[in-house]
Amino acid sequence: MILGKVVGTITSSTSGIEIPGARYLLVEKCNQQGNSKNDFLVALDLVGAGKEEIVMISESTSARETSTTTNKPIDAIIVGIIDLIDENNKIVYKK
Amino acid sequence: MILGKVVGTITSSTSGIEIPGARYLLVEKCNQQGNSKNDFLVALDLVGAGKEEIVMISESTSARETSTTTNKPIDAIIVGIIDLIDENNKIVYKK
Amino acid sequence: MILGKVVGTITSSTSGIEIPGARYLLVEKCNQQGNSKNDFLVALDLVGAGKEEIVMISESTSARETSTTTNKPIDAIIVGIIDLIDENNKIVYKK
Amino acid sequence: MILGKVVGTITSSTSGIEIPGARYLLVEKCNQQGNSKNDFLVALDLVGAGKEEIVMISESTSARETSTTTNKPIDAIIVGIIDLIDENNKIVYKK
Amino acid sequence: MILGKVVGTITSSTSGIEIPGARYLLVEKCNQQGNSKNDFLVALDLVGAGKEEIVMISESTSARETSTTTNKPIDAIIVGIIDLIDENNKIVYKK
Repeated sequence: MILGKVVGTITSSTSGIEIPGARYLLVEKCNQQGNSKNDFLVALDLVGAGKEEIVMISESTSARETSTTTNKPIDAIIVGIIDLIDENNKIVYKK
Repeated sequence: MILGKVVGTITSSTSGIEIPGARYLLVEKCNQQGNSKNDFLVALDLVGAGKEEIVMISESTSARETSTTTNKPIDAIIVGIIDLIDENNKIVYKK
Repeated sequence: MILGKVVGTITSSTSGIEIPGARYLLVEKCNQQGNSKNDFLVALDLVGAGKEEIVMISESTSARETSTTTNKPIDAIIVGIIDLIDENNKIVYKK
Repeated sequence: MILGKVVGTITSSTSGIEIPGARYLLVEKCNQQGNSKNDFLVALDLVGAGKEEIVMISESTSARETSTTTNKPIDAIIVGIIDLIDENNKIVYKK
Repeated sequence: MILGKVVGTITSSTSGIEIPGARYLLVEKCNQQGNSKNDFLVALDLVGAGKEEIVMISESTSARETSTTTNKPIDAIIVGIIDLIDENNKIVYKK
Protein backbone atom coordinates (compact mmCIF):
# COMPACT_ATOMS: atom_id res chain seq x y z
CA MET A 1 0.00 0.00 0.00
CA ILE A 2 1.15 3.56 -0.39
CA LEU A 3 0.80 6.63 1.81
CA GLY A 4 -0.91 9.82 0.72
CA LYS A 5 -2.31 13.05 2.11
CA VAL A 6 -5.88 14.10 1.33
CA VAL A 7 -5.74 17.47 -0.41
CA GLY A 8 -9.05 17.90 -2.22
CA THR A 9 -12.19 16.50 -3.78
CA ILE A 10 -13.24 15.55 -7.30
CA THR A 11 -16.76 16.03 -8.67
CA SER A 12 -17.89 14.09 -11.73
CA SER A 13 -21.53 14.06 -12.79
CA THR A 14 -20.91 12.03 -15.96
CA SER A 15 -19.59 8.80 -14.60
CA GLY A 16 -19.61 5.17 -15.68
CA ILE A 17 -18.81 3.89 -12.21
CA GLU A 18 -22.29 3.59 -10.60
CA ILE A 19 -21.47 3.78 -6.92
CA PRO A 20 -24.21 5.87 -5.29
CA GLY A 21 -22.79 8.57 -3.04
CA ALA A 22 -19.23 7.79 -4.04
CA ARG A 23 -16.74 10.26 -2.60
CA TYR A 24 -13.63 10.79 -4.70
CA LEU A 25 -10.72 12.46 -3.03
CA LEU A 26 -7.65 14.06 -4.53
CA VAL A 27 -4.70 12.51 -2.74
CA GLU A 28 -1.08 13.57 -2.93
CA LYS A 29 1.40 10.79 -2.39
CA CYS A 30 3.65 11.49 0.57
CA ASN A 31 6.44 9.87 2.50
CA GLN A 32 6.31 8.61 6.07
CA GLN A 33 6.98 12.08 7.49
CA GLY A 34 4.01 13.39 5.55
CA ASN A 35 6.21 15.26 3.08
CA SER A 36 4.56 15.63 -0.31
CA LYS A 37 5.85 13.97 -3.47
CA ASN A 38 4.03 16.17 -5.98
CA ASP A 39 2.36 13.06 -7.38
CA PHE A 40 -1.43 12.92 -7.23
CA LEU A 41 -4.14 10.36 -7.70
CA VAL A 42 -7.91 10.11 -7.35
CA ALA A 43 -9.06 7.54 -4.79
CA LEU A 44 -12.49 6.43 -3.61
CA ASP A 45 -12.83 7.12 0.10
CA LEU A 46 -14.13 4.24 2.23
CA VAL A 47 -13.20 5.43 5.70
CA GLY A 48 -14.35 9.05 5.92
CA ALA A 49 -10.92 10.58 5.53
CA GLY A 50 -10.62 14.32 5.99
CA LYS A 51 -8.39 16.94 4.47
CA GLU A 52 -4.75 16.91 5.57
CA GLU A 53 -5.05 13.39 6.97
CA ILE A 54 -2.49 10.81 5.95
CA VAL A 55 -4.11 7.70 4.56
CA MET A 56 -3.18 4.25 3.31
CA ILE A 57 -4.20 3.50 -0.27
CA SER A 58 -4.71 0.15 -1.98
CA GLU A 59 -4.41 0.05 -5.73
CA SER A 60 -5.31 -2.06 -8.75
CA THR A 61 -7.41 -5.18 -8.25
CA SER A 62 -6.95 -4.93 -4.50
CA ALA A 63 -9.12 -1.83 -4.70
CA ARG A 64 -12.10 -3.99 -5.62
CA GLU A 65 -11.90 -6.34 -2.65
CA THR A 66 -14.55 -4.51 -0.63
CA SER A 67 -18.34 -4.75 -0.67
CA THR A 68 -18.60 -1.23 -2.10
CA THR A 69 -16.18 -1.71 -4.95
CA THR A 70 -16.81 -5.31 -6.05
CA ASN A 71 -17.21 -5.39 -9.82
CA LYS A 72 -16.70 -1.63 -10.14
CA PRO A 73 -14.04 0.01 -12.33
CA ILE A 74 -12.20 1.42 -9.34
CA ASP A 75 -8.41 1.12 -9.11
CA ALA A 76 -7.56 3.10 -5.97
CA ILE A 77 -9.27 3.23 -2.57
CA ILE A 78 -8.47 4.74 0.78
CA VAL A 79 -8.41 1.82 3.21
CA GLY A 80 -7.13 3.39 6.40
CA ILE A 81 -6.48 6.65 8.18
CA ILE A 82 -3.00 6.60 9.68
CA ASP A 83 -2.62 7.34 13.37
CA LEU A 84 1.07 6.81 13.90
CA ILE A 85 4.17 6.04 11.89
CA ASP A 86 7.33 4.83 13.53
CA GLU A 87 10.58 4.84 11.56
CA ASN A 88 13.77 3.52 13.10
CA ASN A 89 12.14 3.70 16.54
CA LYS A 90 11.21 7.36 16.24
CA ILE A 91 7.65 8.59 15.80
CA VAL A 92 7.84 10.45 12.51
CA TYR A 93 4.10 11.06 12.11
CA LYS A 94 1.25 11.34 14.59
CA LYS A 95 -2.30 12.29 13.66
CA MET B 1 -7.73 6.63 -10.82
CA ILE B 2 -5.73 9.19 -12.72
CA LEU B 3 -6.65 12.43 -14.41
CA GLY B 4 -6.12 13.12 -18.10
CA LYS B 5 -7.11 15.53 -20.83
CA VAL B 6 -8.59 14.24 -24.08
CA VAL B 7 -6.34 15.38 -26.92
CA GLY B 8 -7.12 13.16 -29.90
CA THR B 9 -8.46 9.97 -31.39
CA ILE B 10 -6.94 6.67 -32.49
CA THR B 11 -8.14 4.66 -35.47
CA SER B 12 -7.27 0.98 -35.80
CA SER B 13 -8.91 -1.22 -38.41
CA THR B 14 -6.82 -4.29 -37.58
CA SER B 15 -7.82 -5.00 -34.04
CA GLY B 16 -8.06 -8.04 -31.81
CA ILE B 17 -10.35 -6.33 -29.32
CA GLU B 18 -13.84 -6.94 -30.83
CA ILE B 19 -15.85 -4.13 -29.29
CA PRO B 20 -18.21 -2.86 -32.02
CA GLY B 21 -18.13 0.91 -32.30
CA ALA B 22 -15.30 1.22 -29.80
CA ARG B 23 -13.98 4.78 -29.52
CA TYR B 24 -10.32 5.06 -28.57
CA LEU B 25 -9.14 8.42 -27.36
CA LEU B 26 -5.64 9.76 -27.02
CA VAL B 27 -5.40 11.11 -23.49
CA GLU B 28 -2.61 13.16 -21.98
CA LYS B 29 -2.15 12.71 -18.27
CA CYS B 30 -2.58 15.98 -16.41
CA ASN B 31 -2.57 17.31 -12.89
CA GLN B 32 -5.52 18.70 -10.97
CA GLN B 33 -5.12 22.13 -12.54
CA GLY B 34 -5.32 20.52 -15.97
CA ASN B 35 -1.63 21.08 -16.66
CA SER B 36 -0.21 18.50 -19.03
CA LYS B 37 2.39 15.94 -18.03
CA ASN B 38 3.59 15.03 -21.53
CA ASP B 39 2.63 11.41 -20.83
CA PHE B 40 0.01 9.86 -23.09
CA LEU B 41 -2.14 6.76 -23.17
CA VAL B 42 -4.92 5.28 -25.27
CA ALA B 43 -8.19 4.78 -23.41
CA LEU B 44 -11.56 3.40 -24.42
CA ASP B 45 -14.22 6.07 -23.97
CA LEU B 46 -17.36 5.00 -22.09
CA VAL B 47 -18.88 8.38 -21.27
CA GLY B 48 -18.78 10.39 -24.48
CA ALA B 49 -15.83 12.56 -23.49
CA GLY B 50 -14.93 15.42 -25.80
CA LYS B 51 -11.67 17.07 -26.69
CA GLU B 52 -10.06 19.24 -24.01
CA GLU B 53 -12.24 17.73 -21.29
CA ILE B 54 -10.56 16.43 -18.15
CA VAL B 55 -11.49 12.86 -17.42
CA MET B 56 -10.98 10.20 -14.80
CA ILE B 57 -9.31 7.01 -16.04
CA SER B 58 -9.38 3.52 -14.53
CA GLU B 59 -6.54 1.21 -15.43
CA SER B 60 -5.58 -2.45 -15.48
CA THR B 61 -8.16 -5.05 -14.45
CA SER B 62 -10.46 -2.32 -13.16
CA ALA B 63 -10.88 -1.30 -16.78
CA ARG B 64 -12.76 -4.52 -17.44
CA GLU B 65 -15.37 -4.09 -14.72
CA THR B 66 -18.03 -2.69 -17.06
CA SER B 67 -20.56 -4.43 -19.31
CA THR B 68 -18.74 -3.15 -22.41
CA THR B 69 -15.28 -4.28 -21.44
CA THR B 70 -15.91 -7.58 -19.65
CA ASN B 71 -13.54 -10.21 -21.02
CA LYS B 72 -11.94 -7.76 -23.45
CA PRO B 73 -8.21 -6.99 -23.60
CA ILE B 74 -8.74 -3.41 -22.50
CA ASP B 75 -6.50 -1.89 -19.81
CA ALA B 76 -7.60 1.74 -19.67
CA ILE B 77 -11.09 3.29 -19.80
CA ILE B 78 -12.51 6.74 -19.31
CA VAL B 79 -14.99 6.40 -16.44
CA GLY B 80 -15.96 9.98 -15.73
CA ILE B 81 -15.90 13.51 -17.06
CA ILE B 82 -14.69 15.85 -14.35
CA ASP B 83 -16.86 18.85 -13.47
CA LEU B 84 -14.98 20.34 -10.57
CA ILE B 85 -11.74 19.84 -8.70
CA ASP B 86 -11.18 21.40 -5.31
CA GLU B 87 -7.66 21.50 -3.87
CA ASN B 88 -7.03 22.92 -0.42
CA ASN B 89 -10.47 24.57 -0.51
CA LYS B 90 -9.86 26.38 -3.79
CA ILE B 91 -11.52 25.42 -7.04
CA VAL B 92 -8.57 24.61 -9.28
CA TYR B 93 -10.54 23.23 -12.21
CA LYS B 94 -14.09 23.82 -13.46
CA LYS B 95 -15.48 22.38 -16.67
CA MET C 1 -3.35 0.88 -23.78
CA ILE C 2 0.00 2.15 -24.92
CA LEU C 3 1.50 2.81 -28.33
CA GLY C 4 4.63 1.13 -29.64
CA LYS C 5 6.57 0.55 -32.82
CA VAL C 6 7.53 -2.96 -33.87
CA VAL C 7 11.32 -3.10 -34.14
CA GLY C 8 12.30 -6.76 -34.00
CA THR C 9 11.59 -10.35 -33.06
CA ILE C 10 12.45 -12.56 -30.10
CA THR C 11 13.21 -16.27 -30.38
CA SER C 12 13.01 -18.50 -27.33
CA SER C 13 13.17 -22.29 -27.63
CA THR C 14 13.09 -22.89 -23.87
CA SER C 15 9.76 -21.51 -22.89
CA GLY C 16 7.19 -22.17 -20.17
CA ILE C 17 4.40 -20.41 -22.05
CA GLU C 18 3.01 -23.21 -24.29
CA ILE C 19 1.38 -21.23 -27.08
CA PRO C 20 2.10 -23.12 -30.32
CA GLY C 21 3.39 -20.80 -33.04
CA ALA C 22 3.57 -17.85 -30.69
CA ARG C 23 5.22 -14.83 -32.29
CA TYR C 24 7.01 -12.52 -29.88
CA LEU C 25 7.88 -9.09 -31.12
CA LEU C 26 10.30 -6.55 -29.76
CA VAL C 27 8.33 -3.33 -29.45
CA GLU C 28 9.67 0.12 -28.66
CA LYS C 29 7.24 2.39 -26.88
CA CYS C 30 6.55 5.53 -28.87
CA ASN C 31 4.44 8.63 -28.70
CA GLN C 32 1.54 9.57 -30.97
CA GLN C 33 3.88 10.95 -33.63
CA GLY C 34 5.72 7.64 -33.70
CA ASN C 35 8.77 9.07 -31.96
CA SER C 36 10.64 6.46 -29.96
CA LYS C 37 10.93 6.50 -26.20
CA ASN C 38 13.93 4.18 -25.89
CA ASP C 39 11.81 1.88 -23.72
CA PHE C 40 11.27 -1.65 -25.02
CA LEU C 41 9.04 -4.60 -24.21
CA VAL C 42 8.30 -8.04 -25.58
CA ALA C 43 4.70 -8.53 -26.72
CA LEU C 44 2.83 -11.48 -28.19
CA ASP C 45 1.52 -10.53 -31.62
CA LEU C 46 -2.15 -11.33 -32.27
CA VAL C 47 -2.80 -9.23 -35.35
CA GLY C 48 0.08 -9.92 -37.73
CA ALA C 49 1.92 -6.68 -37.08
CA GLY C 50 4.93 -5.90 -39.25
CA LYS C 51 8.15 -4.05 -38.63
CA GLU C 52 7.91 -0.29 -38.32
CA GLU C 53 4.15 -0.42 -37.76
CA ILE C 54 2.69 1.42 -34.81
CA VAL C 55 0.58 -0.83 -32.64
CA MET C 56 -1.68 -0.66 -29.61
CA ILE C 57 -0.59 -2.85 -26.69
CA SER C 58 -2.67 -4.18 -23.80
CA GLU C 59 -0.81 -5.09 -20.66
CA SER C 60 -1.16 -7.11 -17.46
CA THR C 61 -4.30 -9.20 -16.96
CA SER C 62 -5.95 -7.56 -19.94
CA ALA C 63 -3.39 -9.38 -22.04
CA ARG C 64 -5.04 -12.67 -21.17
CA GLU C 65 -8.54 -11.75 -22.27
CA THR C 66 -8.25 -13.43 -25.67
CA SER C 67 -8.81 -17.03 -26.75
CA THR C 68 -5.07 -17.42 -27.46
CA THR C 69 -3.82 -16.10 -24.16
CA THR C 70 -6.40 -17.38 -21.68
CA ASN C 71 -4.61 -18.95 -18.74
CA LYS C 72 -1.17 -18.27 -20.22
CA PRO C 73 1.61 -16.33 -18.45
CA ILE C 74 1.48 -13.51 -20.99
CA ASP C 75 1.45 -9.89 -19.79
CA ALA C 76 1.62 -7.90 -23.04
CA ILE C 77 -0.13 -8.41 -26.36
CA ILE C 78 -0.46 -6.44 -29.57
CA VAL C 79 -4.20 -5.85 -29.99
CA GLY C 80 -4.33 -3.45 -32.92
CA ILE C 81 -2.38 -1.98 -35.79
CA ILE C 82 -2.86 1.77 -35.84
CA ASP C 83 -4.08 3.39 -39.05
CA LEU C 84 -4.45 6.97 -38.00
CA ILE C 85 -3.79 9.19 -35.01
CA ASP C 86 -5.38 12.58 -34.68
CA GLU C 87 -4.05 15.03 -32.08
CA ASN C 88 -5.68 18.40 -31.60
CA ASN C 89 -7.41 18.00 -34.97
CA LYS C 90 -4.20 17.34 -36.90
CA ILE C 91 -3.25 13.97 -38.30
CA VAL C 92 0.02 13.22 -36.55
CA TYR C 93 0.40 9.63 -37.74
CA LYS C 94 -0.88 7.79 -40.80
CA LYS C 95 0.07 4.22 -41.66
CA MET D 1 9.14 -9.83 -6.31
CA ILE D 2 11.14 -6.93 -4.97
CA LEU D 3 13.57 -6.54 -2.11
CA GLY D 4 13.09 -4.18 0.79
CA LYS D 5 14.39 -3.41 4.24
CA VAL D 6 12.01 -3.16 7.19
CA VAL D 7 12.38 0.31 8.71
CA GLY D 8 9.25 0.96 10.75
CA THR D 9 5.64 0.28 11.62
CA ILE D 10 2.32 1.85 10.65
CA THR D 11 -0.65 2.15 13.00
CA SER D 12 -4.12 2.72 11.63
CA SER D 13 -7.20 2.46 13.85
CA THR D 14 -9.66 3.52 11.13
CA SER D 15 -9.26 0.81 8.56
CA GLY D 16 -11.43 -0.80 5.92
CA ILE D 17 -9.24 -3.85 5.63
CA GLU D 18 -10.62 -6.13 8.40
CA ILE D 19 -7.66 -8.39 9.11
CA PRO D 20 -7.55 -8.92 12.89
CA GLY D 21 -4.08 -8.35 14.29
CA ALA D 22 -2.73 -7.16 10.98
CA ARG D 23 0.84 -5.87 11.23
CA TYR D 24 1.75 -3.20 8.71
CA LEU D 25 5.41 -2.48 8.23
CA LEU D 26 7.10 0.46 6.61
CA VAL D 27 9.53 -1.00 4.10
CA GLU D 28 12.21 0.81 2.14
CA LYS D 29 13.01 -0.71 -1.21
CA CYS D 30 16.66 -1.72 -1.44
CA ASN D 31 19.02 -3.37 -3.84
CA GLN D 32 20.69 -6.76 -3.42
CA GLN D 33 23.47 -5.31 -1.26
CA GLY D 34 20.83 -3.88 1.07
CA ASN D 35 21.47 -0.32 -0.07
CA SER D 36 18.40 1.87 0.28
CA LYS D 37 16.55 3.36 -2.67
CA ASN D 38 14.68 6.08 -0.77
CA ASP D 39 11.40 4.58 -2.01
CA PHE D 40 8.98 3.34 0.64
CA LEU D 41 5.84 1.25 0.80
CA VAL D 42 3.52 -0.21 3.41
CA ALA D 43 3.33 -4.01 3.40
CA LEU D 44 1.39 -6.50 5.48
CA ASP D 45 3.82 -8.76 7.32
CA LEU D 46 3.13 -12.50 7.07
CA VAL D 47 6.43 -13.92 8.26
CA GLY D 48 7.32 -12.01 11.42
CA ALA D 49 9.94 -9.81 9.84
CA GLY D 50 12.00 -7.62 12.14
CA LYS D 51 13.56 -4.21 11.75
CA GLU D 52 16.61 -4.00 9.50
CA GLU D 53 15.85 -7.39 7.92
CA ILE D 54 15.80 -7.64 4.14
CA VAL D 55 12.57 -9.13 2.90
CA MET D 56 10.95 -10.26 -0.35
CA ILE D 57 7.70 -8.49 -1.21
CA SER D 58 4.89 -9.63 -3.50
CA GLU D 59 2.68 -6.96 -4.95
CA SER D 60 -0.69 -6.45 -6.59
CA THR D 61 -3.04 -9.44 -6.93
CA SER D 62 -0.26 -11.79 -5.91
CA ALA D 63 -0.52 -10.21 -2.49
CA ARG D 64 -3.94 -11.78 -2.03
CA GLU D 65 -2.90 -15.36 -2.74
CA THR D 66 -2.58 -16.32 0.91
CA SER D 67 -5.17 -17.49 3.42
CA THR D 68 -4.79 -14.25 5.40
CA THR D 69 -5.23 -11.88 2.50
CA THR D 70 -7.83 -13.64 0.31
CA ASN D 71 -10.51 -11.13 -0.64
CA LYS D 72 -8.86 -8.33 1.30
CA PRO D 73 -7.82 -4.98 -0.22
CA ILE D 74 -4.13 -5.66 0.31
CA ASP D 75 -1.63 -4.97 -2.48
CA ALA D 76 1.73 -5.67 -0.85
CA ILE D 77 2.82 -8.44 1.51
CA ILE D 78 6.10 -9.60 2.95
CA VAL D 79 6.48 -13.21 1.80
CA GLY D 80 10.00 -14.06 2.86
CA ILE D 81 12.90 -13.03 5.04
CA ILE D 82 16.09 -13.15 3.01
CA ASP D 83 18.99 -15.20 4.37
CA LEU D 84 21.51 -14.90 1.57
CA ILE D 85 21.93 -13.13 -1.73
CA ASP D 86 24.54 -14.24 -4.23
CA GLU D 87 25.41 -11.95 -7.13
CA ASN D 88 27.92 -13.03 -9.74
CA ASN D 89 29.12 -15.79 -7.38
CA LYS D 90 29.84 -13.43 -4.51
CA ILE D 91 27.75 -13.27 -1.36
CA VAL D 92 26.54 -9.69 -1.33
CA TYR D 93 24.10 -10.02 1.58
CA LYS D 94 23.95 -12.37 4.55
CA LYS D 95 21.45 -12.07 7.36
CA MET E 1 7.07 -9.32 -21.01
CA ILE E 2 10.40 -7.82 -20.13
CA LEU E 3 13.98 -8.94 -20.73
CA GLY E 4 16.49 -9.56 -17.98
CA LYS E 5 19.85 -11.16 -17.34
CA VAL E 6 20.26 -13.71 -14.56
CA VAL E 7 22.90 -12.40 -12.15
CA GLY E 8 22.42 -14.28 -8.90
CA THR E 9 20.34 -16.31 -6.49
CA ILE E 10 18.21 -15.51 -3.45
CA THR E 11 17.90 -17.78 -0.43
CA SER E 12 15.00 -17.39 1.97
CA SER E 13 14.30 -19.97 4.67
CA THR E 14 11.42 -18.02 6.22
CA SER E 15 8.91 -17.87 3.43
CA GLY E 16 5.14 -17.66 3.14
CA ILE E 17 5.12 -18.85 -0.46
CA GLU E 18 5.02 -22.66 -0.06
CA ILE E 19 6.47 -23.83 -3.36
CA PRO E 20 8.72 -26.82 -2.58
CA GLY E 21 12.10 -26.51 -4.27
CA ALA E 22 11.37 -23.01 -5.51
CA ARG E 23 14.40 -21.38 -7.13
CA TYR E 24 14.50 -17.60 -6.86
CA LEU E 25 16.88 -15.81 -9.14
CA LEU E 26 18.19 -12.28 -8.99
CA VAL E 27 17.58 -10.80 -12.40
CA GLU E 28 18.83 -7.51 -13.76
CA LYS E 29 16.61 -5.91 -16.35
CA CYS E 30 18.42 -5.42 -19.63
CA ASN E 31 17.77 -4.17 -23.11
CA GLN E 32 17.72 -6.22 -26.30
CA GLN E 33 21.51 -6.04 -26.65
CA GLY E 34 21.84 -7.48 -23.16
CA ASN E 35 23.00 -4.16 -21.71
CA SER E 36 22.12 -3.82 -18.04
CA LYS E 37 19.67 -1.26 -16.72
CA ASN E 38 20.78 -1.34 -13.07
CA ASP E 39 17.22 -2.33 -12.10
CA PHE E 40 16.81 -5.67 -10.35
CA LEU E 41 13.99 -7.99 -9.40
CA VAL E 42 13.53 -11.42 -7.87
CA ALA E 43 11.84 -13.96 -10.15
CA LEU E 44 10.85 -17.58 -9.71
CA ASP E 45 12.67 -19.68 -12.29
CA LEU E 46 10.51 -22.15 -14.24
CA VAL E 47 12.84 -23.03 -17.11
CA GLY E 48 16.21 -23.78 -15.54
CA ALA E 49 17.84 -20.50 -16.49
CA GLY E 50 21.53 -20.14 -15.82
CA LYS E 51 23.73 -17.21 -14.90
CA GLU E 52 24.38 -14.65 -17.62
CA GLU E 53 21.47 -15.95 -19.73
CA ILE E 54 18.95 -13.47 -21.03
CA VAL E 55 15.42 -14.44 -20.09
CA MET E 56 11.85 -13.33 -20.67
CA ILE E 57 9.91 -12.44 -17.52
CA SER E 58 6.15 -12.32 -16.97
CA GLU E 59 4.89 -10.16 -14.17
CA SER E 60 1.87 -9.58 -11.97
CA THR E 61 -1.13 -11.92 -12.32
CA SER E 62 0.36 -13.42 -15.46
CA ALA E 63 3.02 -14.88 -13.22
CA ARG E 64 0.43 -17.16 -11.64
CA GLU E 65 -0.84 -18.72 -14.87
CA THR E 66 1.29 -21.85 -14.56
CA SER E 67 0.70 -25.09 -12.68
CA THR E 68 3.55 -24.27 -10.27
CA THR E 69 2.41 -20.79 -9.37
CA THR E 70 -1.39 -21.10 -9.32
CA ASN E 71 -2.71 -19.52 -6.14
CA LYS E 72 0.77 -18.59 -4.92
CA PRO E 73 1.87 -15.06 -3.99
CA ILE E 74 4.33 -14.89 -6.88
CA ASP E 75 4.47 -11.78 -9.07
CA ALA E 76 7.41 -12.47 -11.41
CA ILE E 77 8.45 -15.66 -13.20
CA ILE E 78 11.03 -16.54 -15.80
CA VAL E 79 9.06 -17.99 -18.71
CA GLY E 80 11.67 -18.34 -21.41
CA ILE E 81 15.39 -18.42 -22.12
CA ILE E 82 16.13 -16.19 -25.09
CA ASP E 83 18.04 -17.68 -28.01
CA LEU E 84 18.05 -14.86 -30.48
CA ILE E 85 16.99 -11.23 -30.69
CA ASP E 86 16.64 -9.47 -34.00
CA GLU E 87 16.33 -5.68 -34.06
CA ASN E 88 15.87 -3.86 -37.35
CA ASN E 89 17.00 -6.98 -39.20
CA LYS E 90 20.27 -7.29 -37.31
CA ILE E 91 20.95 -9.99 -34.75
CA VAL E 92 21.66 -8.01 -31.60
CA TYR E 93 21.77 -10.95 -29.20
CA LYS E 94 22.56 -14.62 -29.64
CA LYS E 95 22.84 -17.11 -26.80
